[in-house]
Amino acid sequence: MSKVGIIGIGLIGGSIAKALPSEVVVYDASSHALQAASGLGIETASSVDELVNTVDTLVIGVPFEAFDSVFASVQSAAARREKPILVTNVLSVMNPVEVTEPNVEFVASHPMAGTEFSGFEAAKADLFEGATWVLAKANDQLAGLVAKLGAKPVVVDPSKHNAIVSQVSHMPHVLAAAQILALPDDSFYSLAASSFRDSTRVAATAPELTGSMVGNNSEEVLHAMKRLSGVLDEFIEVLESGDQAALEQLFARANSQRSKHY
Amino acid sequence: MSKVGIIGIGLIGGSIAKALPSEVVVYDASSHALQAASGLGIETASSVDELVNTVDTLVIGVPFEAFDSVFASVQSAAARREKPILVTNVLSVMNPVEVTEPNVEFVASHPMAGTEFSGFEAAKADLFEGATWVLAKANDQLAGLVAKLGAKPVVVDPSKHNAIVSQVSHMPHVLAAAQILALPDDSFYSLAASSFRDSTRVAATAPELTGSMVGNNSEEVLHAMKRLSGVLDEFIEVLESGDQAALEQLFARANSQRSKHY
Repeated sequence: MSKVGIIGIGLIGGSIAKALPSEVVVYDASSHALQAASGLGIETASSVDELVNTVDTLVIGVPFEAFDSVFASVQSAAARREKPILVTNVLSVMNPVEVTEPNVEFVASHPMAGTEFSGFEAAKADLFEGATWVLAKANDQLAGLVAKLGAKPVVVDPSKHNAIVSQVSHMPHVLAAAQILALPDDSFYSLAASSFRDSTRVAATAPELTGSMVGNNSEEVLHAMKRLSGVLDEFIEVLESGDQAALEQLFARANSQRSKHY
Repeated sequence: MSKVGIIGIGLIGGSIAKALPSEVVVYDASSHALQAASGLGIETASSVDELVNTVDTLVIGVPFEAFDSVFASVQSAAARREKPILVTNVLSVMNPVEVTEPNVEFVASHPMAGTEFSGFEAAKADLFEGATWVLAKANDQLAGLVAKLGAKPVVVDPSKHNAIVSQVSHMPHVLAAAQILALPDDSFYSLAASSFRDSTRVAATAPELTGSMVGNNSEEVLHAMKRLSGVLDEFIEVLESGDQAALEQLFARANSQRSKHY
């Protein structure tokens, strides 16, 4: 069985490489990252072409901005292959990807795991342990790789995926940033304790990553913000009316719903 | 030097008791909690009256609903003392407290520490280590106790305190609950990872505590929600316009502001 190719060894691609160091071949535009991988005994390729010719499964781990051009190079290289190559990306939004090369079987996927850090140095071998990993469609080859990483492959339709992540991932990022930006001045940090620290933790994520993620899913994020705003209006109404029982009821409903899942 | 009295040994009062087990005398309406404290070698009193007659510093650790009636009992008992008693509460909102008994010196205070759990069992000896502890006015006796608990006493005007906590503590609680209540259905939890878990953690707090906290500071919380909603409108505007650079700029500003403090 051939090794798994990885293009882009940031937090996600790098974590796959660290989890399966002897079963992957990696390529990254940064020679610094490639050296770091090589230093851990991970096999490296010197170009996208070389990588596409070496493996039967390829993970594209580059950010949104780089994806189209990297995928175009992958398709040209794959044209010279004798058999198909399975390609996945690991982007946090599943937007349509145009496949023009018959030798490429593309299945979008998205591991529901991450941290507020980025880059190969932040990558961790156990990042995916126990995490859900969404596949845009069923694929045994990809599901096998996901399972080997300790994650649970789950097939979810891309549009449903985008709607869900807008609410459970992109909204927390927007609200973390919004809470920071809503502080009238720096003195407010003096009384901030764990509730503020934790609910703004993901504001430490690299802004270009968060911006792409949210911007590439803007329609769904706008829906999510509308849903949230409807709930905030309920809070405003009970706070303005002074109905303490109704206020407590809102918190009680949230508490009981959450406790079924955590 | 007399011991410190504590009425109400929930998360806060209980944590003070566990931190200074040989230096406190405690009373609680729950005999179960009193037995648990006694089991740890902590001295207990059999009534508010007995406690007020034994100590020169008293921490009232009961929730909002119980505070007025407990404070009334403390004032009656203090009338029979020969010298003044310093009384503080540890409520998360500093609303006016009417002191009618000359023997009572009252200074509101609020430790900026907590967890989503409550009760004596959840209390931890190190809960206050390194935390800020707000005093409504300067008081050496109280500052000494706070320092002994490993916390940093800081004098903040009560109205300023209420404005700050509305934004850095009460908003995270409202947003945690609102994010839960905004989920269209339970399937959304299937893709929730650490960003959602952390940003909704405090929704696990007992609803009666959160409800009282937010309800007792409703005016400031409404201001905080208005400030937040202004920022969310900026996000909506850039998302609707598709201005990716402006979106990234919002995340970058939040990232840079937060990184100065964490």
